Amino acid sequence: MSDLPTSVQINEEGPREGFQFEKGPIPTARKIALIDALSETGITQIQAASFVNPARVPGWADAEAVVAGFTRKPGVDYTALWLNLQGLKRAIATGRLDIKGSFSLTASETFLKRNQQRSLEDNIRAAHETLRMYKDLNIPLERAGIMAAFGCNFEGEIPHQRVLDMIAALLEIAAEHGTPPRVLSLADTMAWATPQSVRALVGKVRNRYPDLTLSLHLHDTRGMGIANAYAGLEMGVRIYDATVAGLGGCPFAAHKGAAGNVCTEDLVFLCEEMGIATGIDLDKLIEVAQLAEDIVGHPLPGAVKMGGSLRALRARAH
Amino acid sequence: MSDLPTSVQINEEGPREGFQFEKGPIPTARKIALIDALSETGITQIQAASFVNPARVPGWADAEAVVAGFTRKPGVDYTALWLNLQGLKRAIATGRLDIKGSFSLTASETFLKRNQQRSLEDNIRAAHETLRMYKDLNIPLERAGIMAAFGCNFEGEIPHQRVLDMIAALLEIAAEHGTPPRVLSLADTMAWATPQSVRALVGKVRNRYPDLTLSLHLHDTRGMGIANAYAGLEMGVRIYDATVAGLGGCPFAAHKGAAGNVCTEDLVFLCEEMGIATGIDLDKLIEVAQLAEDIVGHPLPGAVKMGGSLRALRARAH
Repeated sequence: MSDLPTSVQINEEGPREGFQFEKGPIPTARKIALIDALSETGITQIQAASFVNPARVPGWADAEAVVAGFTRKPGVDYTALWLNLQGLKRAIATGRLDIKGSFSLTASETFLKRNQQRSLEDNIRAAHETLRMYKDLNIPLERAGIMAAFGCNFEGEIPHQRVLDMIAALLEIAAEHGTPPRVLSLADTMAWATPQSVRALVGKVRNRYPDLTLSLHLHDTRGMGIANAYAGLEMGVRIYDATVAGLGGCPFAAHKGAAGNVCTEDLVFLCEEMGIATGIDLDKLIEVAQLAEDIVGHPLPGAVKMGGSLRALRARAH
Repeated sequence: MSDLPTSVQINEEGPREGFQFEKGPIPTARKIALIDALSETGITQIQAASFVNPARVPGWADAEAVVAGFTRKPGVDYTALWLNLQGLKRAIATGRLDIKGSFSLTASETFLKRNQQRSLEDNIRAAHETLRMYKDLNIPLERAGIMAAFGCNFEGEIPHQRVLDMIAALLEIAAEHGTPPRVLSLADTMAWATPQSVRALVGKVRNRYPDLTLSLHLHDTRGMGIANAYAGLEMGVRIYDATVAGLGGCPFAAHKGAAGNVCTEDLVFLCEEMGIATGIDLDKLIEVAQLAEDIVGHPLPGAVKMGGSLRALRARAH
């Protein structure tokens, strides 16, 4: 009936996503406070900064200062995003990050062309460059990903066969460089997935690559995030990206203010209430979600931070 | 693997829930405008008013005026809530409502005592009174329900056996009055359900009463509403209550502003994207959700009204 795992790994991407998306400016000290608070919740991986062009992403112009300022907690990996060699070098230069290589292909060529002015061939060429860069710098390949795996605002439905072909291409590229990825990520970049399509696509990928470790990057832009995560859990997927309070948003949504990534504390609630261990203290995480809201200065989409956990209610009831 | 139905019935409770919960005052004309707009979406049942004590629920002091003012659309049933004979008589007196009888028992005695100052025995006695009242007035029994079927803020977990026993009691009471209910409703009144517990409880109820038509009344207070609806769909449940834009809230949540009922347009999105017919025009419903937000004057929780439907995107892509 279902392959619910006994435990999951949740990668917290709130700081990177949130401070990239918010209009700001948000003081560096408050970004650091959020990362430090997240470190105390039991979360084991935090994407703590983005080393991208400050002219394009002013919210991360202070990436070096943020990374210099937070307190590294043992047992937590602090990762970062970069889009090219320059960004990667900045991340490495901090000396305080867990540098994990990743690369991705995009399942929608229309999206690639519109969003990144690239063709699929350019995308594959760039992947090779990225992997050469990692090899030169002796960086392990953590993750290979397929973006827009469930659908695309510009191209519509993405056929499953195309996703399978792109996974084959990803693995071939990685193999050429002698660095198989530890994890394969399927990203619902534009929030087209439903629980049914998650089940269907994950099922096909699992059948073809039973030994591959899968992860899901889900968006809640159309309210399906938690239901899609549940479908992933039913299919045995054990790794999820999420953002505390639902930090970040969706630039492809119909209206400003739409939700972006699936919310970490709602996902933790789902898992823990179904007996799936996350290692995360939900009540502490709810406090961090409230802090995140205070930092950005407006309501954020997560529900559990308003509804509350059940721990105190259970304790009072028994 | 799953019993996804081919179609579902969604009962819109937004007007009744929303105008009861909102601080207001909201002009009668705007309440009427919302009901009229909902009537144009393809929704076939709208709970249009609440005939309760105006001193306690000032938002529905104008129930008669609202019901006198909306335009009855053929094919749509317009229902109402009442809590006693006086309220029922007010509803009947309008001459413009589809009077459908319902009664419920509450699975948590602690909740009953705290919320309604009643014991389980009082609850059963009141059920008999309600059914006698329906018989006297020749009102058909549409629905029997179990409140707090999935858990209770005051009592914690509710054992499945207790829910099964209460369903047996409900059916016995109804049989005594010669009026079997058309639908049995399981309500997650305080938002304790997870997809797993929905599957488990619905499975047990279905096994014991395979011929009973089930409906689910789900709350999104802890972000599980859509995932729980998906679990209900997987178990073959075909009737759901919901509120447009997520109108209404949860008086039992940890913080003010928490979500209440599951959101109609998000539920319609879930169903339609999985090929389950709702008969509802999602794009029209999104406009009504935006109208609801305008009427109450603050953001409401639904996601699809911000994220947008996929119809225009698909049309543009192909």
